Amino acid sequence: MKKLKSWLASANTLDCEFPLANLPYAVFSAKEQSHSIGVGLGDQVANLRMLEEAGLFDDLSPSLRESVRQSTLNPLMGLGSDQWGALRQRLTALFSHIEYKEVVEPCFIPQADVVFHLPCQIGDYSDFYTSVHHASRVGALFRPDNPLLPNYKWVPVAYHGRASSIRISGEAFKRPAGQLKVPESDRPALGLCQRLDYELELGIFIGTGNSLGEPIDIDEAEQHVFGVSMFNDWSARDIQAWEYQPLGPFLSKSFFSSLSPWIMPMAALAPYRCHWTREASDPQPLDYLDSATNRTQGAIDIKLEVWIETEKMRANNQPAERLSTSNFKDSYWTIAQMVAHHTINGCDVKPGDLLGSGTQSGPAPEESGSLLELTAGGKEPITLSNGEQRTFVEDGDRIILKGYCGNEQHRIGLGKVENIVKSGNSHLP
Amino acid sequence: MKKLKSWLASANTLDCEFPLANLPYAVFSAKEQSHSIGVGLGDQVANLRMLEEAGLFDDLSPSLRESVRQSTLNPLMGLGSDQWGALRQRLTALFSHIEYKEVVEPCFIPQADVVFHLPCQIGDYSDFYTSVHHASRVGALFRPDNPLLPNYKWVPVAYHGRASSIRISGEAFKRPAGQLKVPESDRPALGLCQRLDYELELGIFIGTGNSLGEPIDIDEAEQHVFGVSMFNDWSARDIQAWEYQPLGPFLSKSFFSSLSPWIMPMAALAPYRCHWTREASDPQPLDYLDSATNRTQGAIDIKLEVWIETEKMRANNQPAERLSTSNFKDSYWTIAQMVAHHTINGCDVKPGDLLGSGTQSGPAPEESGSLLELTAGGKEPITLSNGEQRTFVEDGDRIILKGYCGNEQHRIGLGKVENIVKSGNSHLP
Repeated sequence: MKKLKSWLASANTLDCEFPLANLPYAVFSAKEQSHSIGVGLGDQVANLRMLEEAGLFDDLSPSLRESVRQSTLNPLMGLGSDQWGALRQRLTALFSHIEYKEVVEPCFIPQADVVFHLPCQIGDYSDFYTSVHHASRVGALFRPDNPLLPNYKWVPVAYHGRASSIRISGEAFKRPAGQLKVPESDRPALGLCQRLDYELELGIFIGTGNSLGEPIDIDEAEQHVFGVSMFNDWSARDIQAWEYQPLGPFLSKSFFSSLSPWIMPMAALAPYRCHWTREASDPQPLDYLDSATNRTQGAIDIKLEVWIETEKMRANNQPAERLSTSNFKDSYWTIAQMVAHHTINGCDVKPGDLLGSGTQSGPAPEESGSLLELTAGGKEPITLSNGEQRTFVEDGDRIILKGYCGNEQHRIGLGKVENIVKSGNSHLP
Repeated sequence: MKKLKSWLASANTLDCEFPLANLPYAVFSAKEQSHSIGVGLGDQVANLRMLEEAGLFDDLSPSLRESVRQSTLNPLMGLGSDQWGALRQRLTALFSHIEYKEVVEPCFIPQADVVFHLPCQIGDYSDFYTSVHHASRVGALFRPDNPLLPNYKWVPVAYHGRASSIRISGEAFKRPAGQLKVPESDRPALGLCQRLDYELELGIFIGTGNSLGEPIDIDEAEQHVFGVSMFNDWSARDIQAWEYQPLGPFLSKSFFSSLSPWIMPMAALAPYRCHWTREASDPQPLDYLDSATNRTQGAIDIKLEVWIETEKMRANNQPAERLSTSNFKDSYWTIAQMVAHHTINGCDVKPGDLLGSGTQSGPAPEESGSLLELTAGGKEPITLSNGEQRTFVEDGDRIILKGYCGNEQHRIGLGKVENIVKSGNSHLP
């Protein structure tokens, strides 16, 4: 793969996650200025509103020019893949041809100098459950005699999530309270969550929507997807275990969820598509979840990582430590299948809607995307290199999720989502 | 109870659901004009923007005056109960004192001449499960050996719902498709829902929200509630039965849900509050779900009804037929308990968020708020007075949900939500 070079030096270094081949979107502000749409390049953010005002999009469509001047990505998301392609092509030209440097460079600001915000207004958030390895390992903990339910290999299982409590990377949050019931007691009690967990997920943003009652065909599904982010679906396992039957998880999920600032466009992922395959023993998908394109390139090779930095590590200036790795290509269901399934009943999706991939765990136990799996439901603590032990997340822990595609020579990154857990309310109602 | 009279004759008739004691809110438009906030009185809608422009709110707060000029109720909802009270007091004066008639009457338009719209932007929708009678009867169908799960009498069980597919009364919708699996087959197939059902619910609208991480105390909970509507949580029982484990209902609910146009303010419900009691054998609620006020007046006497009008009835000019009645006072959990529970984990609620009460069924089997219950899971068809039979909802059926408080002399109504089911997509993907 020949690597296109930018006139911006920081975009061409070997360890750069934001080369020309990436161009992820974000919403940011600097020095109390208004929120702007930005595109990441090297260690900089390009302010799209300033690029537009500099006349660099004058020959693009009026709707596209208007959309990049907004303070959220929703209008751009709603324009569709042709317009996203036109903008990406223009940005690639502006950032690679040296003659644009003089006019473009004043529209850059260092990433280190900005504050990131949620990239769009998230109307609805749905969380899938696409890792069969996660479903099997968690199922074995909750239902030892029946780990993988009969519908799993037919239905891309998902539930409606809470949009209001989704925040951007960097925000700290309080340990939640809720009803907890231990097996030894015959009644629950209100208390602070004792089994706080992360979930290593991709966030998938809908671009163009559909009309109520009109399903999206699997072969058109990805044209409705704007891009992907890192997503942590924070979970209170003890609250979940008591509340989740028969209608699914509720307060165990709605206290806080977090997104990385960057949305990597689907176009950037093109070189990392791969075959989506099933085990010979697995059923083939129903027709509405099947297509030749989905089979040959439905999966995506995205490397995922979980890191932890405890309060003690910070106090001792120790670096964060990696807890696990996995890969989105091991997902049992693809992005196109998620979108086709979500709309098969006529449900309407809208620009800015978020789909969580579900916890991405690989086939090996050490490729688990949650502590619930890594510690066998809290029964087998893990020991960190400084001697600290963890069964679940403790106050002061910072959890960092990262994702990237490629190798040491060619890499594009999704950035990271990181949050510190604070102690909960000391005076419960 | 002395009944305050309006100078508008239609507001004082015995069968009027919108007397001065009600004053429900809606969003409407007439003759292609813009969306306006309206208040129902008799057979009229008062246009609040016009009342404001006529100077009738000049001494009210600037934020209140601004909020009633908007095209959705969200800004008014966010102002809080003191401001809602000030507006209600003013409207009561304007509509009752004859000296205002000349200036107010031009701001009225007949309800029959307007189109209603969703009253607000619904950020998040959560659906509760507060009828123990519904939970027990449905539980017995899905889990004969374990109808009421152990958490039910402790946890106000709920799940996150889909906001995008909520529509206003009057819209028709297509029968949804989805994965169906009959017990006789070892594999599912894509097909049109064969077990389409309604759910008789109250819609509860959040007014003022809370900050993430800050629970709402049960004694303050109702100050955060703007009002209530009729709500039909349409359900595809066959899709639900196959998809719902382990994460709860998803596509079985997200194809269409519908709201009545009117939001009855909580202030109008004050005369209909009643004791909330538990059976002696039931556990007392945990402290965060308990308060003296909630015990003495947490419940509300709201009469609920389901009606059906089949295609054949319409063709023969037969009136709609009542299928069942129930009462919200039989709910196992109160509105204040729903709000306190929803936020105990720190989840933030926002102006315009919707809580569904869950299907309201009474203790007697004929007080069932769904066909699933009325027909024992489709095994015992009901026979209508024209001889037609129903197990579930058929194409062409119009389902009408109504709600009201009071008796023949003093009645305030929630209006109705009604929709016709159309045939589904004939060409499935």
